[in-house]
Amino acid sequence: MILAATDPYASRTERDSAIVMRQEPVVHGDGHYVDVLAEAQLQAYEQDGFLVLDGLFESREVDGWLAEIERLMHAPDIRAREEAIREKGSDAVRSIFRVHALSPMLARVMRDPRVTDIARQLLGSEVYIHQSRANLKPGFKGKEFYWHSDFETWHIEDGMPAMRAVSCSILLTENTACNGPLMLIPGSHRQFVSCVGRTPDAHYKDSLRRQEYGVPDPISLQLLAEQGGIRAVTGRPGTVVFFDCNTMHASAGNLSPWPRANLFTVYNSVENRLATPRYGLAPRPEHVATRETFEPL
Amino acid sequence: MILAATDPYASRTERDSAIVMRQEPVVHGDGHYVDVLAEAQLQAYEQDGFLVLDGLFESREVDGWLAEIERLMHAPDIRAREEAIREKGSDAVRSIFRVHALSPMLARVMRDPRVTDIARQLLGSEVYIHQSRANLKPGFKGKEFYWHSDFETWHIEDGMPAMRAVSCSILLTENTACNGPLMLIPGSHRQFVSCVGRTPDAHYKDSLRRQEYGVPDPISLQLLAEQGGIRAVTGRPGTVVFFDCNTMHASAGNLSPWPRANLFTVYNSVENRLATPRYGLAPRPEHVATRETFEPL
Repeated sequence: MILAATDPYASRTERDSAIVMRQEPVVHGDGHYVDVLAEAQLQAYEQDGFLVLDGLFESREVDGWLAEIERLMHAPDIRAREEAIREKGSDAVRSIFRVHALSPMLARVMRDPRVTDIARQLLGSEVYIHQSRANLKPGFKGKEFYWHSDFETWHIEDGMPAMRAVSCSILLTENTACNGPLMLIPGSHRQFVSCVGRTPDAHYKDSLRRQEYGVPDPISLQLLAEQGGIRAVTGRPGTVVFFDCNTMHASAGNLSPWPRANLFTVYNSVENRLATPRYGLAPRPEHVATRETFEPL
Repeated sequence: MILAATDPYASRTERDSAIVMRQEPVVHGDGHYVDVLAEAQLQAYEQDGFLVLDGLFESREVDGWLAEIERLMHAPDIRAREEAIREKGSDAVRSIFRVHALSPMLARVMRDPRVTDIARQLLGSEVYIHQSRANLKPGFKGKEFYWHSDFETWHIEDGMPAMRAVSCSILLTENTACNGPLMLIPGSHRQFVSCVGRTPDAHYKDSLRRQEYGVPDPISLQLLAEQGGIRAVTGRPGTVVFFDCNTMHASAGNLSPWPRANLFTVYNSVENRLATPRYGLAPRPEHVATRETFEPL
């Protein structure tokens, strides 16, 4: 499948930046593919582009997953893999991608009906894992991550056709105002910010650490933030955030001594499987954007 | 006057980092040099090393001061001065030093009894302005500022003898969790973190933008933060924060579109006037550390 020439979500072209209205619904189908979220929760997600679920998991469960991630981050065979991303200017591992393939324990978490049923309800279909990772923003050294829409990247670099994917972040440590929590712009998911500038080939290695392409312009960002404000997601371990693939988000540096850890899964609709990347780009590797299987979980 | 050879607050030596107990009281004299703060407020300042006063100024006063600062930041004669500090990698002015000498309006604010009486009460004496500045952390571009004790710098680079100075920050815009608010470590003022490494001459120009010297080690910082936690000061315009010269503080980058502005005055006790800088360093310029006059306000 090749994306249509008249792509509504063109980006990184020679043109100026632009704000484009979202074409797809936010909650797909009739919103009742399964019924785990209440009507008010569906409406909040529809309106804000995200939903925070306090205490979806127990802290004793979460502690075990955090220990597993710390084990992986110190395991020499994992550290040597392409999946292990280091903090810029440091040897500390910041993220491990494709953890659902590297750890049976974490794979079970990502297939747990408490999260997958929410993804299925929001996307109105069966789902598969487009990308997974464990993030550990280390104390003091954890760097900020600037505003971006994941969908912009996935559409251009991975050939994801439509806004029918949802990210799920399980907080594994206390997230406070001081350790670089996830920040979201409510309502930003209803507008697509077309970015300026072409993407060079194989830039994904760098883009996971530093952002230069697919960066929204300050005028569009200001407009979105003036409209919706900015929400920082703080909460205790076990809290879960679901956010739409097009919700603009960022996180500040971690100036506290306490690491900010989360387990991150992107669920994509099986009806939204990846097509060819734009501009003749080579597909990104399997651990960043799965193509091996689009089978439902 | 030359600082004693057995300086309790030695720092930037060849030795390892160390944590040294504070020698001086936090509230000086009997705490009643004047009586504007209530006993509970004095105790909170004594214990935490800072005090947040909500709504000390009216928003209509504050709006006028912010407009004055914006005027100064765009005035070509001000922008050309050494007092105007630019954001790293940008032409945006981030701070204007010595604003009490550059703007009669702002000088009046810094001499307003609503703030000077608090400084006099805390320091137990008459006070003078050691340093003043207007800070404008611009939206999106405002960078983080790492943990530091101001006293460490003022002691080593300016020859300030004792911990008998207090910083006063008047919030001029809404400070939220998302625009890089001031973060403080409660209780950190009772311990002095001796830092590693010598100071090269005339490094002040750079240090106002980037920190390499007088940086506390991560072990000491972690200890202080584990003991006291971290407090982010958020509040509406007109809120005022007083914090002890040795309270460890930092601020994250500003990822919001909204600038974070404040008016910053360091009051020093007239009984704590500057001596010779350490290690034969040349005195820093007048706009960073006043030496022209130690006359009381």
